[in-house]
Amino acid sequence: MDIATVIGLVSGTVLILGAIIMGGSVGTFINIPSVLVVVGGTIAVTFIRFKMSDVIGSIAVALKAFLFKMQNPEDIITEMVEYTRIAKKEGLIALEKESPADPFSAKALQYLSDGYDEGLIEDMLMKDIRLTIQRHATGQQVFKSAGDAAPAFGMIGTLIGLVQMLSSMSDPSSIGPSMAVALLTTLYGAVVANLVCIPIADKLSLNSEKEKLTKTIIVEGAIAINRGVSPMVLEESLKIFLSPKEREKPAEAATVGQAN
Amino acid sequence: MDIATVIGLVSGTVLILGAIIMGGSVGTFINIPSVLVVVGGTIAVTFIRFKMSDVIGSIAVALKAFLFKMQNPEDIITEMVEYTRIAKKEGLIALEKESPADPFSAKALQYLSDGYDEGLIEDMLMKDIRLTIQRHATGQQVFKSAGDAAPAFGMIGTLIGLVQMLSSMSDPSSIGPSMAVALLTTLYGAVVANLVCIPIADKLSLNSEKEKLTKTIIVEGAIAINRGVSPMVLEESLKIFLSPKEREKPAEAATVGQAN
Amino acid sequence: MDIATVIGLVSGTVLILGAIIMGGSVGTFINIPSVLVVVGGTIAVTFIRFKMSDVIGSIAVALKAFLFKMQNPEDIITEMVEYTRIAKKEGLIALEKESPADPFSAKALQYLSDGYDEGLIEDMLMKDIRLTIQRHATGQQVFKSAGDAAPAFGMIGTLIGLVQMLSSMSDPSSIGPSMAVALLTTLYGAVVANLVCIPIADKLSLNSEKEKLTKTIIVEGAIAINRGVSPMVLEESLKIFLSPKEREKPAEAATVGQAN
Amino acid sequence: MDIATVIGLVSGTVLILGAIIMGGSVGTFINIPSVLVVVGGTIAVTFIRFKMSDVIGSIAVALKAFLFKMQNPEDIITEMVEYTRIAKKEGLIALEKESPADPFSAKALQYLSDGYDEGLIEDMLMKDIRLTIQRHATGQQVFKSAGDAAPAFGMIGTLIGLVQMLSSMSDPSSIGPSMAVALLTTLYGAVVANLVCIPIADKLSLNSEKEKLTKTIIVEGAIAINRGVSPMVLEESLKIFLSPKEREKPAEAATVGQAN
Amino acid sequence: MDIATVIGLVSGTVLILGAIIMGGSVGTFINIPSVLVVVGGTIAVTFIRFKMSDVIGSIAVALKAFLFKMQNPEDIITEMVEYTRIAKKEGLIALEKESPADPFSAKALQYLSDGYDEGLIEDMLMKDIRLTIQRHATGQQVFKSAGDAAPAFGMIGTLIGLVQMLSSMSDPSSIGPSMAVALLTTLYGAVVANLVCIPIADKLSLNSEKEKLTKTIIVEGAIAINRGVSPMVLEESLKIFLSPKEREKPAEAATVGQAN
Repeated sequence: MDIATVIGLVSGTVLILGAIIMGGSVGTFINIPSVLVVVGGTIAVTFIRFKMSDVIGSIAVALKAFLFKMQNPEDIITEMVEYTRIAKKEGLIALEKESPADPFSAKALQYLSDGYDEGLIEDMLMKDIRLTIQRHATGQQVFKSAGDAAPAFGMIGTLIGLVQMLSSMSDPSSIGPSMAVALLTTLYGAVVANLVCIPIADKLSLNSEKEKLTKTIIVEGAIAINRGVSPMVLEESLKIFLSPKEREKPAEAATVGQAN
Repeated sequence: MDIATVIGLVSGTVLILGAIIMGGSVGTFINIPSVLVVVGGTIAVTFIRFKMSDVIGSIAVALKAFLFKMQNPEDIITEMVEYTRIAKKEGLIALEKESPADPFSAKALQYLSDGYDEGLIEDMLMKDIRLTIQRHATGQQVFKSAGDAAPAFGMIGTLIGLVQMLSSMSDPSSIGPSMAVALLTTLYGAVVANLVCIPIADKLSLNSEKEKLTKTIIVEGAIAINRGVSPMVLEESLKIFLSPKEREKPAEAATVGQAN
Repeated sequence: MDIATVIGLVSGTVLILGAIIMGGSVGTFINIPSVLVVVGGTIAVTFIRFKMSDVIGSIAVALKAFLFKMQNPEDIITEMVEYTRIAKKEGLIALEKESPADPFSAKALQYLSDGYDEGLIEDMLMKDIRLTIQRHATGQQVFKSAGDAAPAFGMIGTLIGLVQMLSSMSDPSSIGPSMAVALLTTLYGAVVANLVCIPIADKLSLNSEKEKLTKTIIVEGAIAINRGVSPMVLEESLKIFLSPKEREKPAEAATVGQAN
Repeated sequence: MDIATVIGLVSGTVLILGAIIMGGSVGTFINIPSVLVVVGGTIAVTFIRFKMSDVIGSIAVALKAFLFKMQNPEDIITEMVEYTRIAKKEGLIALEKESPADPFSAKALQYLSDGYDEGLIEDMLMKDIRLTIQRHATGQQVFKSAGDAAPAFGMIGTLIGLVQMLSSMSDPSSIGPSMAVALLTTLYGAVVANLVCIPIADKLSLNSEKEKLTKTIIVEGAIAINRGVSPMVLEESLKIFLSPKEREKPAEAATVGQAN
Repeated sequence: MDIATVIGLVSGTVLILGAIIMGGSVGTFINIPSVLVVVGGTIAVTFIRFKMSDVIGSIAVALKAFLFKMQNPEDIITEMVEYTRIAKKEGLIALEKESPADPFSAKALQYLSDGYDEGLIEDMLMKDIRLTIQRHATGQQVFKSAGDAAPAFGMIGTLIGLVQMLSSMSDPSSIGPSMAVALLTTLYGAVVANLVCIPIADKLSLNSEKEKLTKTIIVEGAIAINRGVSPMVLEESLKIFLSPKEREKPAEAATVGQAN
């Protein structure tokens, strides 16, 4: 569970609610038809653009992004170094007995123990990475297009309200409240887009990049194991993937690698 | 027929109509000159930008995108695996007797049975993919440029209405209704762009990407068949194109492949 | 002459004029200083950005795009197939006697009859394509930058009008008409950009892409002729450049090729 | 000196001043604090983004772009053809005596007369082009980011003015003039961005592209000279870089080449 | 410490404060709930998008960018030329004794003295550059996304204020001050984005490009040292990385290289 995200979502909501409550009546800010136009319209447009399975899939991906932590690159490196040791000692075939939690690592080990040649291993794993990234892109697009649609439907709602207000402007004292209601859809659209859709789309895009990095480490590791590179050289070469700060940790992590 | 799209279009329209009806008189929202400026202007600008055949072609492409379902990558894989089996048993020449529904598969099989060499098969099929994508791009551009033009003509209509209203502001009580009419074109422009043009352009772009994926599977399959790869290895290698969830299905699908 | 473009420009103008006339006095919408600020300012800024020869050249390119029809890819393919027949029968040297209307075809034939080697022919023709595209890009940029400048100068004019109106607001009855005049520049800017500049820039960009396609067909054809490919194989291979619908036509066209 | 640019800058300024003067008092449009917020703020933000040497360098580059004319590609081609003649007659070593005005040509000739091998000459000259383009990009970014900052500070100034006006709205008759002053910063921001910063950034970008073209001609010429290509073939091959219209001129230019 | 940045930040703040103070009461512009909505909301959204370590890391990177000066390319070249001299005189192994301040140079020297082969040195150093750039990109994205979020939350705050004001418009005299408060969040959002977040994001992006340039010089230098290129040729070849103006300096700098 990603704590920063929860803190962000909760505190953002609290701040906006606080600003509303401090100004007096909360009821003014609740208007069911306005919610329907903005949220309903955004969902409707999302269904026009994407297949139903894409929409549902992207929500699953978003939940997964928030509920599960991604594997640390440091741990992956420690694992790969461990596998090199095993391959050096007992041969590539011994990797068959290993069962890493990550399905991509598992597939890489299987290719190694099956004795595929280097070109084929690299080809198949890199293609897997490329296609995974492409599939993740759909998830990001669902939230990104919702983030574009929400303010648009906010504006459509406000325009409907303004036209209604202006065309029957008999009672000047009702102008204020009518306009307040008209502006509500714009407010809803801005909140839905900026507090929910756009940040989630960005989060998924960042996760996708990190997953690519992690998987690239596994591919490079698998190729090196196949070539019979020594564990120390492999560790040195994979540590380039880490930031200077992270590079200091794996040294100790390697010794307690089994414990992780 | 793509159900999600229909649901999206219908529910989006219902939501907007609902918001209008709840506010009272629907008549206020109907103004023929405003419709002419926004819809007419958008169509006019689209005709300046594109050839008439491009505009008509893009509408045909859009209708096709909504009425017909695209081939599932799983089915394509099952088919390609089946063709490998035939080629293994009866030789490449036997593929001549197969007649797949998809014209691109048909062309790939024809090249295989004609005994073209691998480089030429890949070259010609990949060029076909590239040029198909390019042609589809025109369809997307037609709707995308209409999605840009509609709000612009909405604004032009509103500006015309505002200038007319402001230049003859003798009767203050008429300001409200005049301004309501002026705002209608902006509302029309926003609805046309956000409920129709932009979602369709996005849908076509997604379909184009999916078609590219499907065709790439066929090209990889054709090359593998030509090389005499075994059906099992081919299935394994093509299944990388599927998402982890989809990968579980083809296993059974393969056995009932003929039934699909 | 491109009929769709003319229909688009005329009907777009008629629609806007209609909306103005229906509202009453046309005179309200004519304001020479406003025209000067928007049109003059847009032209001024275009001259700052581009060399005078670029500006004049881009107008020539735009006129050409509207007045002349581009060569059909089908006709080009028919021509190239015809040249292969001649080269097969009478040798490459016989191509010298052919004089295609298109200067790029003429150059390709000249290279072929001069006996240049394949690499050089491809290099020189592809470089020609690349540099032509680059030159056309300047024409598009001129209209695109004018399409950006027009609304900006519309806003500048409106701001000047608003400041003048607000700073001398002695007579409340004059506010309306003053503001109407101030809004005119915004209207002019929106019309100039959305009805003229942006569509023309897009048209030039599409034409440029089509010209690239046509010239690529010629290059591929020339290389095939040099290699002595048979007319039928060449036709098959070039027809991939056409859309499925267009592919049906050249078959007949080929027989009446001479007549075109 | 680029006449079109001067005409553009002068006429753009005259048009805006004309619109102001026609409306009456010019004094209304002069407000020192507003100038300070917009121009000062834009400069301040530019200093945060770039190193002081980058800012000063980009102004120098802009002045150079307006004061000096760039070398014509035609003249460069004439020069390169001339150098081939010399190299053919007297050997590469004779190029040492030539001293072209353009430092890039001079460097190319030096490499040729020093007898560097082709790969090295191409490598070093192409790297020079790439890095020159990269350095020029900084100049464009300075003006582009100033063009983004100016309207932002215009809006900040207007918001400050509006807040001040609204919070002390005791005298209704002062609302107009106060709002006029508040809008001035938006006007300043729009003029600074659209008449000065953005056109200059575009001009620098176009110049950079043209310089790249000119230098690429020199590189291709130098390689051809090194290979001992004949002057006529070189002229033919370099003329592809020119537009069809320009291609007619170098023929005569070549004969009066020395005079240029 | 980068003086231009400090001057920019201080003068930008002074200009805005000056405009506020000149208009009278500063108190009008201070509103704690508005600050909370804009600054708090921006931070909240940033936490949703990025991992906590990314946010903290990017602030550290930003501080580093402002507090520390980057190494001059000229000095790097002088150093690399010096190392070539040492390698020529005493062999690659002698580079082990050198301890450059820059960790990337240190790593390059270590690879050289360890006798790695050229391909491996280039591979590992280039991968290091690519991954460093990727990590820096996160820092830029944090500030860029904050620069997008701040104006959005400014608008959300203003909409909340407007709805509150309009729904309880009993006392007309309170409209002005209420609207002033509502506009404050928009003002805060514009200042936070345009004076702080966007310039810092741009600064980091420029620094990242400069670091890439510096490191590329080191890689090219290391490869040349490994190949045994002479110091003079190396200097000539690395000086291409400098601008024409900078190129004049290293000549003298080289003689006083040790003193730097």
